[in-house]
Amino acid sequence: MFEAKLSSAGIIKKILEAIKDLLTDAQWDCRDSGLSLQAMDSSHVALVALKLNADGFEVFRCDRSMSLGLNIANMTKIMKAANVDDTFMIRAQDNSDTVVFVFEAPSGDRFSQYSLKLMDLDTEHLGIPDTQYNCIVTLPSAEFSRICRDLLSVGESITITCNKSGITFSSKGDLGTGNIRLLQSDVEGKEVSLDLREPCSVTFATKYLSNFAKAAPLSPNVQLSLSDDMPIAVEFKIEGIGYIRYYLAPKIDEDPEFKTEAVEEEEATMEN
Amino acid sequence: MFEAKLSSAGIIKKILEAIKDLLTDAQWDCRDSGLSLQAMDSSHVALVALKLNADGFEVFRCDRSMSLGLNIANMTKIMKAANVDDTFMIRAQDNSDTVVFVFEAPSGDRFSQYSLKLMDLDTEHLGIPDTQYNCIVTLPSAEFSRICRDLLSVGESITITCNKSGITFSSKGDLGTGNIRLLQSDVEGKEVSLDLREPCSVTFATKYLSNFAKAAPLSPNVQLSLSDDMPIAVEFKIEGIGYIRYYLAPKIDEDPEFKTEAVEEEEATMEN
Amino acid sequence: MFEAKLSSAGIIKKILEAIKDLLTDAQWDCRDSGLSLQAMDSSHVALVALKLNADGFEVFRCDRSMSLGLNIANMTKIMKAANVDDTFMIRAQDNSDTVVFVFEAPSGDRFSQYSLKLMDLDTEHLGIPDTQYNCIVTLPSAEFSRICRDLLSVGESITITCNKSGITFSSKGDLGTGNIRLLQSDVEGKEVSLDLREPCSVTFATKYLSNFAKAAPLSPNVQLSLSDDMPIAVEFKIEGIGYIRYYLAPKIDEDPEFKTEAVEEEEATMEN
Repeated sequence: MFEAKLSSAGIIKKILEAIKDLLTDAQWDCRDSGLSLQAMDSSHVALVALKLNADGFEVFRCDRSMSLGLNIANMTKIMKAANVDDTFMIRAQDNSDTVVFVFEAPSGDRFSQYSLKLMDLDTEHLGIPDTQYNCIVTLPSAEFSRICRDLLSVGESITITCNKSGITFSSKGDLGTGNIRLLQSDVEGKEVSLDLREPCSVTFATKYLSNFAKAAPLSPNVQLSLSDDMPIAVEFKIEGIGYIRYYLAPKIDEDPEFKTEAVEEEEATMEN
Repeated sequence: MFEAKLSSAGIIKKILEAIKDLLTDAQWDCRDSGLSLQAMDSSHVALVALKLNADGFEVFRCDRSMSLGLNIANMTKIMKAANVDDTFMIRAQDNSDTVVFVFEAPSGDRFSQYSLKLMDLDTEHLGIPDTQYNCIVTLPSAEFSRICRDLLSVGESITITCNKSGITFSSKGDLGTGNIRLLQSDVEGKEVSLDLREPCSVTFATKYLSNFAKAAPLSPNVQLSLSDDMPIAVEFKIEGIGYIRYYLAPKIDEDPEFKTEAVEEEEATMEN
Repeated sequence: MFEAKLSSAGIIKKILEAIKDLLTDAQWDCRDSGLSLQAMDSSHVALVALKLNADGFEVFRCDRSMSLGLNIANMTKIMKAANVDDTFMIRAQDNSDTVVFVFEAPSGDRFSQYSLKLMDLDTEHLGIPDTQYNCIVTLPSAEFSRICRDLLSVGESITITCNKSGITFSSKGDLGTGNIRLLQSDVEGKEVSLDLREPCSVTFATKYLSNFAKAAPLSPNVQLSLSDDMPIAVEFKIEGIGYIRYYLAPKIDEDPEFKTEAVEEEEATMEN
């Protein structure tokens, strides 16, 4: 039997918002150590990795490891029925073909219970190599969301360029170009910090970065880990319990001149 | 001549929201005693009965009984033009082919007047037999709305089961099952009260219950009157003036095993 | 070189909302005296005239006159990327094929820069004759918006009638008629004032008046200038910097009886 309880259903609601546009079905792995999920998005371009540690739950009991294959759209529908301040419980009997979700109002006079059919998913676990990144940038996740939203109307790709003074997001499309530059700062609630071994400039599909930004409600900050010609890792820590991480391979056919232009132009601007 | 005035147009706006998805056209009956409306929904499955008593109006004058046939969509458009705090007046001359609505701002420097064409509607009045119900449940109308919304994503039918400890709403569909259980309680603003002669369990179309829930803004509470194999009556009292009531016949072909399962399962949960 | 800076991008965002449903492309004229725009809407029925005076800008430098042809939809997309409290700068080099927009956060640690391609527009300037109007009405722009919205669901035309006691907006359609009457008043924030040389009654297309009402966020009040059988001028002053004005020719085939009816009916109502 597997049973896990959280005092607030809010975290699970937000996790579903953060994965529902990327994943159709996914396997939730229940282990002694916690609940985790790892899956490629439906077009096999991005990887989602979620980890919720056992000790972050109010109750966590996993008699033996099991994997729960769930349709994410259906699970999202059901989580909509939970209030943010309801408690959340997930329970699966050994060899059952359903998983049960129970939400309880804080007042104790309202219970809702949903059972969802399990699916047999044919998944294989991908090893994620431990990588040392050249640039690690932390920025407010609301800022990351806004940048993705703004550049989505400019072009299909975003080039992320890091150097000592800050980080620049650039895009180019039919209407023209867009560049957003954040300087390193320690203003409260606006912290942008860079840990830079060497400068880098890498290009990614705007659409996927925008999808990752949907995890912003899970964490006040997001950490971007970058190296030239390497996949980016986008991590949102979930306080007290774990993290959600996204990996995305760079686009390599991007016009190399544009990157240089973008950065030079933007630096010219800053001098004004 | 018929003339009736309310100090706030808000009630009429909310009434239209509560009927516009059920009724295309409806006949408003103007009598000495008040303004009322009774109509089957367009698919002849549900019955809407509205009563606004003469003494709930600021001004009420009805020289002789008349019936005003109105298109509900057009009346809704016009009521959108009234502010919640505008006064509302309805006026119809004897034998006129229009009805006039007048809204006046509290400041007195803004008047709007709309005339709407009357329709000849071929309606017959249905007698609603006085029924003694086995279960009468009062619950917050916001809670009723939420239950209907949540179960709408589970299945086409909702089974309502009442017993001594509380009321359960259950649904079953392709994705699995959902059960919401409310316990009797007297928490302020959260009152769920049951008046139970004998337990009952009846099944209704989710779509219609959801439509009835649109009356929730009219009243803090809703009263459900139930007996096995009988139509449900769903009543929202409108403070100081009357009520809106909906009647809906039960679905009788529903899987009887499911009801039992649902309740047993949910009771098992509660013991945990 | 042309360069102009505002301390708040909000004004430009609102201006775009006020023109984007009327204009596909437009030419922004940069002169020593300021930035202006004058264009017929895409169906050549309404005229938009915008003037932003040089001295309303924080920085304004125009070495020589130039005209910037811009696609309004693209410019709107880019202005969505500016926060209301960002500074706004527009800059165009002589003979460049792009214009640059720079937004800077008040904290100074976020810059965004967008370049937009310029278009060759074949436009001619229309002379707007100086007209003396018989009625000049000032009313809250939120009230003007609401009237346009309310009458949009009644009919395709709005007849505006001014006389000593106030202004009436009337419409007639399949569902019936609507009349909204505002009395002259000096209630704070609700000022309706009339400057009347002689009464007038003119009819315009509801759709265009509704489009003009989208400028309401730019100004607390709107000024309507009217004469019988003449185009209306609808002006929103933009505090400290200029104005946006719309001109629209009257509809002349409107049923003349209706106008009279509308006003008489409404005056009858007021006496009650």
